[in-house]
Amino acid sequence: MATKKISRRKILQTSGMVAAAGLISACNNGGTPNKPSDSAKILKKKIEWKMVTTWPKNFPGLGTGAQRIADNITAMSDGRLTVKLFAAGELVPAFECFDAVRENKAQMSHANAYYWINKDKSMPFFGAVPGGFTAQEHNAWIYYAGGQELWDKLYAQFNLKPFMAGNSGTQMGGWFLNEINSVSDFKGLKMRIPGLAAEVLNRMGGTAVLLPGGEIMPSLQSGAIDATEWVGPWNDLAFGFHKITKFYYGPGFHEPSSALECAINLDAYNALDNDLKSIIKNASEAENTRMLSEFTAANIDAQLKLVNDHGVIIRNFPKDVFNLMMSLSKDVAAETASEGKINKDIYDSWNKFKENAIKRSPFNEHGYTNLSNNT
Amino acid sequence: MATKKISRRKILQTSGMVAAAGLISACNNGGTPNKPSDSAKILKKKIEWKMVTTWPKNFPGLGTGAQRIADNITAMSDGRLTVKLFAAGELVPAFECFDAVRENKAQMSHANAYYWINKDKSMPFFGAVPGGFTAQEHNAWIYYAGGQELWDKLYAQFNLKPFMAGNSGTQMGGWFLNEINSVSDFKGLKMRIPGLAAEVLNRMGGTAVLLPGGEIMPSLQSGAIDATEWVGPWNDLAFGFHKITKFYYGPGFHEPSSALECAINLDAYNALDNDLKSIIKNASEAENTRMLSEFTAANIDAQLKLVNDHGVIIRNFPKDVFNLMMSLSKDVAAETASEGKINKDIYDSWNKFKENAIKRSPFNEHGYTNLSNNT
Repeated sequence: MATKKISRRKILQTSGMVAAAGLISACNNGGTPNKPSDSAKILKKKIEWKMVTTWPKNFPGLGTGAQRIADNITAMSDGRLTVKLFAAGELVPAFECFDAVRENKAQMSHANAYYWINKDKSMPFFGAVPGGFTAQEHNAWIYYAGGQELWDKLYAQFNLKPFMAGNSGTQMGGWFLNEINSVSDFKGLKMRIPGLAAEVLNRMGGTAVLLPGGEIMPSLQSGAIDATEWVGPWNDLAFGFHKITKFYYGPGFHEPSSALECAINLDAYNALDNDLKSIIKNASEAENTRMLSEFTAANIDAQLKLVNDHGVIIRNFPKDVFNLMMSLSKDVAAETASEGKINKDIYDSWNKFKENAIKRSPFNEHGYTNLSNNT
Repeated sequence: MATKKISRRKILQTSGMVAAAGLISACNNGGTPNKPSDSAKILKKKIEWKMVTTWPKNFPGLGTGAQRIADNITAMSDGRLTVKLFAAGELVPAFECFDAVRENKAQMSHANAYYWINKDKSMPFFGAVPGGFTAQEHNAWIYYAGGQELWDKLYAQFNLKPFMAGNSGTQMGGWFLNEINSVSDFKGLKMRIPGLAAEVLNRMGGTAVLLPGGEIMPSLQSGAIDATEWVGPWNDLAFGFHKITKFYYGPGFHEPSSALECAINLDAYNALDNDLKSIIKNASEAENTRMLSEFTAANIDAQLKLVNDHGVIIRNFPKDVFNLMMSLSKDVAAETASEGKINKDIYDSWNKFKENAIKRSPFNEHGYTNLSNNT
């Protein structure tokens, strides 16, 4: 209790909290003779938080999803916890979000955990692992199979509290200047692809290139790169890759579930009243449903447009290519376990859940779609 | 505005609202000279709502999910909207939940919309349609492809506001006393199966039987029925069907997505302040993620136990059997469109989204699982 009070006072000094102490004392003085405890409970401080993101302003799905979370926290708390969103570069550069929240320059961030792989090799397990879970499996692991506890432990080392908060669903494999017919087509292929998947591409004989979003189009156009992955039909159509090449392959081995996170300064989080903690938790969980739903619906429309209006040739990777991608992904994921105790715990938990989930595959959503699409 | 005030007063008289008017006036009298408007805004009435459900007390996944929603609304509002849950039969019998909420005996319910098919033939589209969506597609249709608007319209006729609030995921096809090898094995087969799927079974030459949960085990044991569906491995293991037969088929054509609902008395809902409306909406959306995650994780464990510890033989339906189930399901769903204007609108919207979704199947979660499981 004493600790809680101290850390709350600390936050009050360093964060964007709007002190409304006058309000509290005035009303406590005014009193409610018949229900004094209710009165004390209802009157609370007003708080203003900054949310930084790795997304451009209003970026479809990801940036707009982050805005929905901010708006919902503000609405549910009736402005008692007002969250103001800052797009990439507005308060700090995209890839400084993690440190900005640790240092309480902002109180929360919306991003993908794999961006912080330089902080810890296990970060991708909470964002996207090549050859990993689907969104439904990813959520199941986080909420009901030990994932959240491991994530909490990892992030507590950085004074952060993480929540899963959105998902793009299975991403597309990408746009290629030339057809992909066999494994040998990856020899010397220069492709924009980030995260652990970059290592997979390199082991296939290609060269992974890291490029920020804005540089992809000119690089593909000039032939500086031969291929790029981005997100999926919805975002890719908006980006205009179909103007450069018609060869669109999928699904992507590299982001079968791409989960987003709200990471919250742990002191700021601990200083909150329980109702506000619950509001943040529910707003994050709700966004998991909303964002995946929006991507699912918008990707269906966008794929139709790409194929019907723009003549895009959409194909699965050849079977032997996908097999190699998956088997190299397995190696790359397994190697993270050698980093340390917590990394081994994370990998083991993830891998065990994955192996068991595969056994249910013929009898769940996958089995149903498989049987019914062939009708 | 005038209307809103009147309906709020009406609710105050008829529902379980705890008036805290003394609290409000006392604190307004006490005043906050520097911030009078904030003070007025923060002080609000306390409300108590009843939630009725169609589930037995603490029924795994469904009953416990309803309890989570109630608890989360209470926690997020810090008790300002306290939701008290009543299991089936505690306040009203299971299948009277819909009318109880219309009549404001309770302010909200947690159930499956298909239970109300006698009220309107289109109800299953918001619960479970044989041959219908997966959970991810179902959510996408509801939130971002017109489903919610149609559902609002349908339910407004009954003075209700609906929210999707949980999903069991794709259910299992059921337990059969004898092996299923061909379509002819359904001739004369007596099976416990509810909803639109009952009509499908009848058209296959079987006889659909409606039995409440408690009567299924003795009926299967005595041979009064030859087969039963229930939910999936998690609930089925708890029920003990494996003690009677080892033949477990799946996935079920009848509930590929089984979505749960919170239905709320429309007057009670409209009388709420915006922050409480937002809290209910987010609690429902969050439960969509949580419940599906819990079923996904628990079904994986339970299937392993059924197969490894209890020798259950788990199989897909033969291809020609599943094809027939899907094609009859298509007919049965399409026939609902003849009921009236709103029914046609619902069917058309659902069917269009379904046809387009299938085209994305090779490139989304399904395509990924399909390619990767064969590695």
